[in-house]
Amino acid sequence: MNLTEMAQRAKRAFYELSESPLSVRNQALIRMAESLIQDQDMIFSANLADLAQAREEGLAAPLLQRLRFDQAKLQQVTSGLHALAGLPDPIGKTVFCHEITEGLKLYRVTCPIGVIGVIFESRPDALVQIASLALKSGNAALLKGGREALRTNQALISSIRKALSASSLPLDAAQLMETREDVAAMLKEDTLIDLIIPRGSNAFVRYIMDNSRIPVLGHADGVCHVYVDRDADLETAWKVALDSKIQNLSVCNAEETLLVHAEIADAFLPRFAELLQANGVEIRGDEEVQKMIPCLPATESDWSTEYLDAILSIRIVSSLQEAVTHINHYGSHHTDCIVTENRSAASTFMTRVDSAGVYLNVSTRFADGYVYGLGAEVGIATGKLHSRGPMGLDGLTTYKYKLIGHGQTMAEMKRGERVYTHQVLDEKCPL
Amino acid sequence: MNLTEMAQRAKRAFYELSESPLSVRNQALIRMAESLIQDQDMIFSANLADLAQAREEGLAAPLLQRLRFDQAKLQQVTSGLHALAGLPDPIGKTVFCHEITEGLKLYRVTCPIGVIGVIFESRPDALVQIASLALKSGNAALLKGGREALRTNQALISSIRKALSASSLPLDAAQLMETREDVAAMLKEDTLIDLIIPRGSNAFVRYIMDNSRIPVLGHADGVCHVYVDRDADLETAWKVALDSKIQNLSVCNAEETLLVHAEIADAFLPRFAELLQANGVEIRGDEEVQKMIPCLPATESDWSTEYLDAILSIRIVSSLQEAVTHINHYGSHHTDCIVTENRSAASTFMTRVDSAGVYLNVSTRFADGYVYGLGAEVGIATGKLHSRGPMGLDGLTTYKYKLIGHGQTMAEMKRGERVYTHQVLDEKCPL
Repeated sequence: MNLTEMAQRAKRAFYELSESPLSVRNQALIRMAESLIQDQDMIFSANLADLAQAREEGLAAPLLQRLRFDQAKLQQVTSGLHALAGLPDPIGKTVFCHEITEGLKLYRVTCPIGVIGVIFESRPDALVQIASLALKSGNAALLKGGREALRTNQALISSIRKALSASSLPLDAAQLMETREDVAAMLKEDTLIDLIIPRGSNAFVRYIMDNSRIPVLGHADGVCHVYVDRDADLETAWKVALDSKIQNLSVCNAEETLLVHAEIADAFLPRFAELLQANGVEIRGDEEVQKMIPCLPATESDWSTEYLDAILSIRIVSSLQEAVTHINHYGSHHTDCIVTENRSAASTFMTRVDSAGVYLNVSTRFADGYVYGLGAEVGIATGKLHSRGPMGLDGLTTYKYKLIGHGQTMAEMKRGERVYTHQVLDEKCPL
Repeated sequence: MNLTEMAQRAKRAFYELSESPLSVRNQALIRMAESLIQDQDMIFSANLADLAQAREEGLAAPLLQRLRFDQAKLQQVTSGLHALAGLPDPIGKTVFCHEITEGLKLYRVTCPIGVIGVIFESRPDALVQIASLALKSGNAALLKGGREALRTNQALISSIRKALSASSLPLDAAQLMETREDVAAMLKEDTLIDLIIPRGSNAFVRYIMDNSRIPVLGHADGVCHVYVDRDADLETAWKVALDSKIQNLSVCNAEETLLVHAEIADAFLPRFAELLQANGVEIRGDEEVQKMIPCLPATESDWSTEYLDAILSIRIVSSLQEAVTHINHYGSHHTDCIVTENRSAASTFMTRVDSAGVYLNVSTRFADGYVYGLGAEVGIATGKLHSRGPMGLDGLTTYKYKLIGHGQTMAEMKRGERVYTHQVLDEKCPL
């Protein structure tokens, strides 16, 4: 089947899905969990074949680890499906109700977006997570995983589609794209596909944006900062700055650059350098930092680099404003933290820093859909429109206006036979 | 000044503006109204010069009418500014508050988007409307009006900037782009400009999308439908279908295609054709319609044409589903109406039709920001993401997550020293 045909089927599946009751979508999620357990032998053996080939091709150990889909992963994935089935319906919620004129009520109601193309990395569990979030929110998904995980993804999607079929939901709500050519073809289908969510490097997200007029919610680089303000509590600063860096090196919400106010640097840096060294973290400092602690010199490119590794760049700033300007200039608008006891400094930082997450006295590692209580996440959006930060169920919905009248015309309004009442009502949309 | 420099200044202005209290932004709106009244002679004479040149260049009468900025327009614009100053603050609103773990609270808070580029048609009053909506919502705007209105727009922007300056707000929050080259240059500034709102034809909006990776909220074609269901009340159907077509021919929310269920066509069409003819509307019908009423034949291209004129295409459908499929295929996802007394048909139509506005028994002419009670509008968004339909103040905001803790680390969470509480709290963000 070619991509256009897949996208047409997905669109039809979306229309059907958008009308399905919550109970049917939830039942399908439970059936998905059952189906994956039933099909585990097929899935595990497909994964072993993927792993064997990846090992042969010399894939690095951390990537092999991500590729693995075993009993533990299955357990994680199926308990995630049960949790998702327990969440409230993200679609059909009345956001507000306005009475426009007598007997004429306007409702803003949440609804699915439509057909969503998601391109994700090698973790096969991501396929189940994304397909299930899309299903719960009434969207049809075209999924493209990593090349290394192809056999595993084929096994997973066939198991998922069995569950859809058993729940009388359209099979084509979840389809697997298998080649790069499929992705390239998808970018052209702007009348059929409503949203693309690419997970990957900045360069990859930009490639997608440059080659499609379909809206993109990009999960790109995380160049996250911790700023230790003049009025920071030192113990808090050490804890937060260290956890943000070392708790998990390879994630997008890890700290890559530390900014320190000049007036607290003497008190903060030497002890912090010891903590970093004890944890095997390489320091790259600006000239001031180099005078105070042992480190390598930072270059201009360090300030915008996402290391995803045991490296931290450190810079001394002479004011809060300089920290804010640095973050807005070099950062990736993902998640940035200020450590301070000064309320006014915190307020300025949190207003002026132009990022999806602005934190006070807490590790940047908290930027995550599960942690935020959003259920799970499809990605972390670093753009500014629609969904920002961890993108959960509500990030996969949009809204429509439903206007319910009994023959009102604009001519009557213009003639003054009816007047605008513009009342805000606390009422659910009946249709 | 070149466009990059303008965009850099706009970005700085945005950061300053995003911190300004509501009272200062409101005061600036009132001062804008005063400033425009003070400068009216300068503005009117600039407009007379624009009108004289447009007349010389043979601009059509309706376009000349839109270009005119006189005492009546000034009065409209200034009363709009006063109304806007009275609306609640769209930014700094806490959307929700979650407690993540003891003492760690997450707030989703509305905030401005940033620097917005708006390209609009020849009406100079649009400049004031857009600049004031952007200001109220804390955004900096780069504005490009029609070439014919250049002198008027220059006079308006200089008057608006006086008011900003008198309120100690950054002048560069409102800047005028004067050439097409400026627009082309703006499309490249994706690190400085956060959103582009093009108002114009589908082709124009597509040109913008194809030439920029900046997100676009497009105000494009309105191919709006009225569907007269088998269970329609005839009086309501005649009223709604007529008003949607003739109340204003040249607007995007006017009806362009009428769909009629085969079982009610005999009862509905002959009288409706008389009403259309009495109002000078040309009918283009499919084969079935041609057998029932005098009309021209409709061709395939009629179904996707926005006439903006006294022309209506009419098609007979054999089922509700056929109507829905027609609308989703040929429509522009703007606003579509069903006329029916059947609740289940209404519900199916309103769920399945994939448009920003889905109406029951009311004229499509109600799709408007003022009518919806959104204050005013920057445009009507026909995309699906972020803002849909009339785009008012809240369409010009996004949100950020503010997380306020006291040194919590992810290491503590993973070690189980702290547990997720995931409580929903009814609390405003204090910072």
